[in-house]
Amino acid sequence: MARPEILKCVLCGKEYSPEPERYVCGTCGLDGTLDVLYDVNEAKKRLMKDSLSLSREMSMWRYRDIMPVLNDANIPELSVGWTPLYENKRLASEYGVRKLYVKDDGRNPTASLKDRASAVGVAKALDFGQKTVACASTGNAASSLSGFAAVTGLESYIFVPEKAPAAKVTQLLVYGANVVLVKGDYAKAFDLATAAIEKFGWYNRNCAINPYLVEGKKTCAMEMAEQLNWEVPDRVFIPVGDGCCIGGLYKGFRDLLELGLIDRMPKITGVQAEGSSPIYKAITENSERVNFGPANTIADSISVGAPRNWAKALRAIRKSGGAAVTVTDNEILSAIPELARSSGVFGEPAGVTGFAGFRKMALAGETAPDETVAVVVTGNGLKDIESAKRSVGKPLSCSPDIEEFSRLIDLRRTHK
Amino acid sequence: MARPEILKCVLCGKEYSPEPERYVCGTCGLDGTLDVLYDVNEAKKRLMKDSLSLSREMSMWRYRDIMPVLNDANIPELSVGWTPLYENKRLASEYGVRKLYVKDDGRNPTASLKDRASAVGVAKALDFGQKTVACASTGNAASSLSGFAAVTGLESYIFVPEKAPAAKVTQLLVYGANVVLVKGDYAKAFDLATAAIEKFGWYNRNCAINPYLVEGKKTCAMEMAEQLNWEVPDRVFIPVGDGCCIGGLYKGFRDLLELGLIDRMPKITGVQAEGSSPIYKAITENSERVNFGPANTIADSISVGAPRNWAKALRAIRKSGGAAVTVTDNEILSAIPELARSSGVFGEPAGVTGFAGFRKMALAGETAPDETVAVVVTGNGLKDIESAKRSVGKPLSCSPDIEEFSRLIDLRRTHK
Repeated sequence: MARPEILKCVLCGKEYSPEPERYVCGTCGLDGTLDVLYDVNEAKKRLMKDSLSLSREMSMWRYRDIMPVLNDANIPELSVGWTPLYENKRLASEYGVRKLYVKDDGRNPTASLKDRASAVGVAKALDFGQKTVACASTGNAASSLSGFAAVTGLESYIFVPEKAPAAKVTQLLVYGANVVLVKGDYAKAFDLATAAIEKFGWYNRNCAINPYLVEGKKTCAMEMAEQLNWEVPDRVFIPVGDGCCIGGLYKGFRDLLELGLIDRMPKITGVQAEGSSPIYKAITENSERVNFGPANTIADSISVGAPRNWAKALRAIRKSGGAAVTVTDNEILSAIPELARSSGVFGEPAGVTGFAGFRKMALAGETAPDETVAVVVTGNGLKDIESAKRSVGKPLSCSPDIEEFSRLIDLRRTHK
Repeated sequence: MARPEILKCVLCGKEYSPEPERYVCGTCGLDGTLDVLYDVNEAKKRLMKDSLSLSREMSMWRYRDIMPVLNDANIPELSVGWTPLYENKRLASEYGVRKLYVKDDGRNPTASLKDRASAVGVAKALDFGQKTVACASTGNAASSLSGFAAVTGLESYIFVPEKAPAAKVTQLLVYGANVVLVKGDYAKAFDLATAAIEKFGWYNRNCAINPYLVEGKKTCAMEMAEQLNWEVPDRVFIPVGDGCCIGGLYKGFRDLLELGLIDRMPKITGVQAEGSSPIYKAITENSERVNFGPANTIADSISVGAPRNWAKALRAIRKSGGAAVTVTDNEILSAIPELARSSGVFGEPAGVTGFAGFRKMALAGETAPDETVAVVVTGNGLKDIESAKRSVGKPLSCSPDIEEFSRLIDLRRTHK
């Protein structure tokens, strides 16, 4: 059983003991998100390549010994993580890299990477004896939290911006969450959630606030490393909104380094939508902090103008020697069918943004032919069918008549 | 490596050798679907409880030794099967059975149980040197085939009835299938597909025609048995449309019996929508054959008036001592949130129909308190958000203002 030893501010380094209401740094405020640190020497005794290779726990909880949940009984029963990592030779050859891997995190129980965070979130809520959990979300964190709250019997309040796709809002209602459509954008939903959480004393599952959630997300990195037999890729591409997923990747690889399970850090490359790219701007301008700006992209899951976990995002890119890149909405849309047709992985717009970023860098000659690359697909395409529709053509329409069908096919072949 | 030895007609028992164009019985025609039989003594040498417990193949291909694919290289890389089986104590206690298990087959790569069949379908197409695969489908078989065709580089033609939900059609287009919206119902789409397949010599992935596809679906039964440590449930509930899924469950349990891995057959209970229930009628009227009838239900995946695999469906229910039951569309819709809120599993309408049937039988006192029950959820709720919407209420709407929110909450609490 792991026990978080220290919470440490990512900005000033100040340390805190892990108490229920300790979310961020007392000095740095909301900007000072906290790292969860463990007794690594203890964890080393149990987390070894051999023991992992024998483990039958085919979920993210195979890394239980370096995760922050106190009581095993609080781990929800929904099976999360250990999602497939596919090698794609077709795309590797097309874009001129040695190997390309696709991590399909849309295979999680509520169909996004956020399930890794929510599973830890509800477990911590139960660890701390809470009855109600809440978050603001553009959608995936919300559906995820509502699903995990449902199985654990917690009440949930979810604050979503009014523009969130219907599929995502319906999913919340199906799981029985109290859903609040907030008039305004994600930042407004976030602020109202924060105020309500404080007023009513609920457990805060906002990933940029709650230090434990990144500890769920980090398992995505750990799985990739283990699935590649502890040979990490040279570069990993991941979409960036709030900064929590990329922060999670970094933390996962760093924990593995400390545990001695890998011997280097991949270059972590954050991909943002052009219309919502404050992290990209901070990286290219080499600035220490991130200026909040507008958020306008079809990729709703990363439509975040005020990335609350900016400090972890910048650190992930800088300390890993990675990069930041932006893609247009059209580049995101065209990545949906291209990835699906070559790999069988159907991602939502934000979900394929990592791949779109890889493609852009590769086409610009910014990847190397001897590089091994992994792209993380963070959410399932079924979550946003309206966007997917815009990425493809129309079906043929035909009477149930073989002669008419044959004529249609001939016509189609002539036009190809 | 398994090799199908014999194809045997489910009606007259006539045997055939497994040749590419042998789909159904030469004597019984389309009604005479074929069973795939193996050299069980050979398979017994490799498929043992001990060897399976050590297997790291966490997909349906762990049962490779009793599956019909000739060349391992033809097995597609998309990871299918080994979906979670959850015990649900809350529902077991509420409905008065000893144990209730939920098998979440919406966790497959294109989000339905049909992936098990499509994976085998494309592998057989490649075994037989085919370049194009085709099927008629109400949706899930189609999206599944298009996904598996995409990863294996096969061309696909998919015939869907014009009323198929947009989410499912979009998924096909994203995967690059040639999609034909057929003016008419599923029966019309089926007939046109059959004519086109014959005319153009494509490989037929219609599950009720192609004997190999049920061999994919059977792995759902095998997984449940293995996940329950080879103690099969007393009763299994599964939605019934064409009859292929229930036929697959029966075949899976029967193969396990022959292999000596289980010692009894669960009672297989088929659940149909009231508006589309020809199998139910045949069972209750004790007739030898099935009369085709109308198909009208919100559960599009089982909206099948002409169940082409009726012979395997009747056999599954009768030989296992199971039953048939119908549920209304309202019972299906209310099952969506009930299952999601208690188990975290969000199913599409057809997906939760098995659970709706269980609930109905339990409430009617037709299950026993000492029974162990499993329900198979055959498809993910994200596939049909419009129906899911009809199963739930509306979200709260609120300005980003904590005072307004507090008033809303007070009001809500007063009204509870």
